[in-house]
Amino acid sequence: MQMIGVGLIGTGFMGKCHALAWTSVRTVFGDVEPVRLVHLAEANPDLARQRASEFGFEKASGDWRALIEDPAVDVVSITTPNQFHPEMAIAALEAGKHVWCEKPMAPSFADAEAMLAAARRSGKAAALGYNYIQSPSIRHIRTLLNEGAIGTVNHLRVEMDEDFMAAPETPFNWKHEAASGYGALDDFAVHPLSLVKALFGHVASVMCDMAKPYADRAVAGGGRRAVETYDIASTLVHLDNGVSGTLLVNRSAWGRKGRIAVQIFGSKGSILFDQERFNEFQLYVTADRATEQGYRTILAAPVHKPYDRFIPAPGHGLGFNDLKTIECRELIRRIRGEEANLIEFDEGLEIERTVHAMARSFEERRWVDVR
Amino acid sequence: MQMIGVGLIGTGFMGKCHALAWTSVRTVFGDVEPVRLVHLAEANPDLARQRASEFGFEKASGDWRALIEDPAVDVVSITTPNQFHPEMAIAALEAGKHVWCEKPMAPSFADAEAMLAAARRSGKAAALGYNYIQSPSIRHIRTLLNEGAIGTVNHLRVEMDEDFMAAPETPFNWKHEAASGYGALDDFAVHPLSLVKALFGHVASVMCDMAKPYADRAVAGGGRRAVETYDIASTLVHLDNGVSGTLLVNRSAWGRKGRIAVQIFGSKGSILFDQERFNEFQLYVTADRATEQGYRTILAAPVHKPYDRFIPAPGHGLGFNDLKTIECRELIRRIRGEEANLIEFDEGLEIERTVHAMARSFEERRWVDVR
Amino acid sequence: MQMIGVGLIGTGFMGKCHALAWTSVRTVFGDVEPVRLVHLAEANPDLARQRASEFGFEKASGDWRALIEDPAVDVVSITTPNQFHPEMAIAALEAGKHVWCEKPMAPSFADAEAMLAAARRSGKAAALGYNYIQSPSIRHIRTLLNEGAIGTVNHLRVEMDEDFMAAPETPFNWKHEAASGYGALDDFAVHPLSLVKALFGHVASVMCDMAKPYADRAVAGGGRRAVETYDIASTLVHLDNGVSGTLLVNRSAWGRKGRIAVQIFGSKGSILFDQERFNEFQLYVTADRATEQGYRTILAAPVHKPYDRFIPAPGHGLGFNDLKTIECRELIRRIRGEEANLIEFDEGLEIERTVHAMARSFEERRWVDVR
Amino acid sequence: MQMIGVGLIGTGFMGKCHALAWTSVRTVFGDVEPVRLVHLAEANPDLARQRASEFGFEKASGDWRALIEDPAVDVVSITTPNQFHPEMAIAALEAGKHVWCEKPMAPSFADAEAMLAAARRSGKAAALGYNYIQSPSIRHIRTLLNEGAIGTVNHLRVEMDEDFMAAPETPFNWKHEAASGYGALDDFAVHPLSLVKALFGHVASVMCDMAKPYADRAVAGGGRRAVETYDIASTLVHLDNGVSGTLLVNRSAWGRKGRIAVQIFGSKGSILFDQERFNEFQLYVTADRATEQGYRTILAAPVHKPYDRFIPAPGHGLGFNDLKTIECRELIRRIRGEEANLIEFDEGLEIERTVHAMARSFEERRWVDVR
Repeated sequence: MQMIGVGLIGTGFMGKCHALAWTSVRTVFGDVEPVRLVHLAEANPDLARQRASEFGFEKASGDWRALIEDPAVDVVSITTPNQFHPEMAIAALEAGKHVWCEKPMAPSFADAEAMLAAARRSGKAAALGYNYIQSPSIRHIRTLLNEGAIGTVNHLRVEMDEDFMAAPETPFNWKHEAASGYGALDDFAVHPLSLVKALFGHVASVMCDMAKPYADRAVAGGGRRAVETYDIASTLVHLDNGVSGTLLVNRSAWGRKGRIAVQIFGSKGSILFDQERFNEFQLYVTADRATEQGYRTILAAPVHKPYDRFIPAPGHGLGFNDLKTIECRELIRRIRGEEANLIEFDEGLEIERTVHAMARSFEERRWVDVR
Repeated sequence: MQMIGVGLIGTGFMGKCHALAWTSVRTVFGDVEPVRLVHLAEANPDLARQRASEFGFEKASGDWRALIEDPAVDVVSITTPNQFHPEMAIAALEAGKHVWCEKPMAPSFADAEAMLAAARRSGKAAALGYNYIQSPSIRHIRTLLNEGAIGTVNHLRVEMDEDFMAAPETPFNWKHEAASGYGALDDFAVHPLSLVKALFGHVASVMCDMAKPYADRAVAGGGRRAVETYDIASTLVHLDNGVSGTLLVNRSAWGRKGRIAVQIFGSKGSILFDQERFNEFQLYVTADRATEQGYRTILAAPVHKPYDRFIPAPGHGLGFNDLKTIECRELIRRIRGEEANLIEFDEGLEIERTVHAMARSFEERRWVDVR
Repeated sequence: MQMIGVGLIGTGFMGKCHALAWTSVRTVFGDVEPVRLVHLAEANPDLARQRASEFGFEKASGDWRALIEDPAVDVVSITTPNQFHPEMAIAALEAGKHVWCEKPMAPSFADAEAMLAAARRSGKAAALGYNYIQSPSIRHIRTLLNEGAIGTVNHLRVEMDEDFMAAPETPFNWKHEAASGYGALDDFAVHPLSLVKALFGHVASVMCDMAKPYADRAVAGGGRRAVETYDIASTLVHLDNGVSGTLLVNRSAWGRKGRIAVQIFGSKGSILFDQERFNEFQLYVTADRATEQGYRTILAAPVHKPYDRFIPAPGHGLGFNDLKTIECRELIRRIRGEEANLIEFDEGLEIERTVHAMARSFEERRWVDVR
Repeated sequence: MQMIGVGLIGTGFMGKCHALAWTSVRTVFGDVEPVRLVHLAEANPDLARQRASEFGFEKASGDWRALIEDPAVDVVSITTPNQFHPEMAIAALEAGKHVWCEKPMAPSFADAEAMLAAARRSGKAAALGYNYIQSPSIRHIRTLLNEGAIGTVNHLRVEMDEDFMAAPETPFNWKHEAASGYGALDDFAVHPLSLVKALFGHVASVMCDMAKPYADRAVAGGGRRAVETYDIASTLVHLDNGVSGTLLVNRSAWGRKGRIAVQIFGSKGSILFDQERFNEFQLYVTADRATEQGYRTILAAPVHKPYDRFIPAPGHGLGFNDLKTIECRELIRRIRGEEANLIEFDEGLEIERTVHAMARSFEERRWVDVR
């Protein structure tokens, strides 16, 4: 591949984020192929044209199938609402394109399985948008764990909280319908699970509890309607490697904006991380002298790769969008056939299998084995 | 009562803490009766004499029964290991003394019940040493919750972590034997439960998981022995008032020294607290303008009673021992027949009932109703 | 102007940063003209070609004059070492190009004056790279100050500290020669001064002290040489508006990576900011009830413009490079003739005048009026 | 000395603080003589009697001279307003009593000199109440500095800020009159100077600026009056050992409650401390591996003496009043003729000499040598 032809479906939050990643990945990393922004698709054709102009794409379509049929497109970024992922991803893979699809794979597990099957048939790269695993902090935490910096890990706590659903005055919307899924479990749990996967491996069994902060909400036209989804999910987990832990998510947590708090306890120390300050993490090691043991707040720096590709000075800080650029470069490596730090459809399916096991555990009020 | 005659059993961590509280309570508060340090008992008679001299007690005994029979003693502080609490507390109550007993009440629930029965028969004050509920921060948080400052509370997370058991090299000791109890559940869970009680009320049902970071430990004489207690306990909880939450404890959490982290989420805001920095707490309220919403870090100050009795200037900080002095003053109020902010034997028994329900839940791998 | 033709001189830290800004500014903001990356110049012609390919520039030159003569170039980014700024900027302006030059303007004040004169003659945009003033936090702090959120400001403290010069083992280099300037005063002081300018206005008088942490350093070939520059500069300042304050900089401050700590005190509150965590700031207001007054930690969010152009969700965080993209958009506004939030050559000259006044104050051990 | 007979003059903030220290010092430390609370003096005789009862003193006087003449009194705590210190301290010393006097020594330097002369003539202990130097954190920081943990110190910044004078609505009071002294310089600067003394040694020269946030204030009876004292003082300092630094104080700093922020920079690391969280400090050392260098937040623990005498568990926290108890034990050591960690009249005079040099420096707008 001498040049990467990119197609982008969707132009919302993640569509723009993908566009920025494709635009800047070669400027940042240098060692990747030139990127050609070929085709942008968006249901609204006028909006498609406008965004194509703004994002620098050559062509715009109101129909995503035109994009997938475009021979100049090598890889397709799928950033549409979740229910469209299966059809688009499968069609793209079947058309011989690499796929970079936002998480989660699909509302239904069967659809996610079909996506994986299509990826396997195609032999193409099929990666998911789990960019939180790409931060220099998380990457370095993995290095530390592998080095045994905190000894043998024995316990893990992960929390993910935001407050976009916290206002009781927010009217009933589609995210309150059971058809949208379980609630916070779908919206959030996959992110902590991607970190668990990146740092440790698979979840073996789960025991989940869910809660609704608000039983009903005002309906636009008048009256109130019962909320069918759960903004809160709290899960006891056992990992395959025997480590126990908890995974707590809440999308009605006033004050939390993008919190993903991780606590990792080992036999020789512990590590703390919070996505709201993802340019730093904290390390406690018993190797330090007793009178000076304490959590070190370590700021991301050029020594924490690939921070150095963005900024040669420590403590200056990457942004959320930069994480997607790192992910983009990993995808390009994967397309080349190199080893890459990505969550692909096979691992993504494991994550979704875990989410469904959590939901079943809640419904049946018992521990459930993920596989 | 013109003067309070105090007897103290035990001279370890908590013994000294009680001694300091009795010594300084009138100097701090002014509005309490004079305190007379009458009698100190400690199994080792030489140590008893030494500590009595240091702490300023008039008499010293190697036999705690002599103290309980001392007519000059009005109230008995019991700070011995947990297994001695029932016998001492019941004897003291039967001798017509008020009792101030360190938590937890007793290793066995039946013994705790017997203690409550004795307290009821005696009509005397029978209070437990749950001093974390006494900090100006926690007291003000309760006021805020009662005022509706964060609306209706809908979710709660509490963690209590220390690292005194975290070193895998620590040899097997009595705390690793099943006879000592469940492990972290006994050592720690009662503290978060005292905060839950103080702030919200009772726990209705629980689903607990426990874990052992280290399967076995070296025995002093050579060889290794399987650890029988659990350093980690993670519990899903439902409160009587319908609020859901989690209660996580870990006594092998490297880096944590005296952490009791509380997160309270409501319909109009949230509150954060951590005992490691108990002279402050954080408040987020949606009443603030959108562009300036954020957690306020509020330092304890004279406006947060009874901080003002210790220091007339804000931000100077109380110490751990000061919390016991506040508890001591509440006990004196209770002895006088006034309303007091204390956890007495009846509420203490509810806390221990909850702990036992947690353990049963873990053993039976199912949700258990506390009552 | 239908399309912006960009020339970039220099491909180091700031060269890449400008390239990323030009590459992504239209994708982020939408409302700016298309950007054409026309010409890249770099002393080493091979490196110029390589970077032009990586950054996506059409042409590469080993001679910056070729770039300036390129008729397709409308605006020139100058990111070379400071001593080259005057010649390049003046030539670019005289060739009718807009100029975006990294700070500081020039080592000598006379050269900086010549740059301003050239800018005035040309009528072109002549902006400096003071991107720290562009963060949503700093922009919102300015809004709050203008609204009177903390009343009348009466005191200001600014610190800027890094540790890139802190290792005593680092051999003597050009930054230790007097020819390079004063030291930290040139490297750092201009940044805090840009914030002072953005938030308050000009500095009226200064009293500066400087210090050398290490009197001499090893010379590569052997022996040691006396250090001629000052890593530390501490200055008492009075602003034109009567506000007093301090401005402290240190480039040998172990542990500090990109700290620019600002404390602003007013009659009704105070504001804190630290560039190491520039996605947040702290606000204390006396309008809050006495029992709940405390610093609010406010995370950057879409309500703090133009954060929303990068990310529609709060608390996700911009990166250092994003600040340059915001600056780039301001520059484009300025080129269009619109009002822009920029430090142009006239204000830049005031900043450098202040730096020189600081140095004179130190040399003469007395208060010096800036003008 | 078999028992220490204590006299206390004054029953305000510091009077109570001394009473608590005397009351608990033997309970906490064990290794000190029994303390007998002999005599309390307070201008208002009724209040004297009430406080004597509350604090547990045997006698009460409305006349402090009666206390000084009391043969049962061995040591006199002086906690009255500053202007009374000289007369009381000199009388007590001349009566052969040890003296423990709150800082500062006296409003006038001549009076402070007379106090030192009296102390020298008497041969008695004459200590000042500089309790901030007693915290386990500060004591351990001194140990680290002595060990060379951060190499050779080269720069120092100290800030002390509170907001008790920050409200512009506060009416004119005696602290706004020139007769009360310079303002923040007297109220605050002595505290940071005590830390400088404890950690490093003497100040050699100073360059100070002062400011008034509010030019005038309302007078109780109507009208406004010009404020004569300075709430803000910012000083450039050089220490005897060649270290440079800054010492900034502000008693009108909204949001600051008891801040004493210390930054110490050395050739191998740095140390941070803030009195508002005095149970912790931060250490950065270059001995840590580059990828894990960061500030360690170290919680006070039993390994940081004498924390262990108060609490045997780490991270539980001492309070402000506990610092006075530590100081009290140091005083007792001094009385016994042992080495003690105290600021006595000779060192206290050096501190006040420095304050007066600061004031002169401001008035004369020039650097002033302290001696």
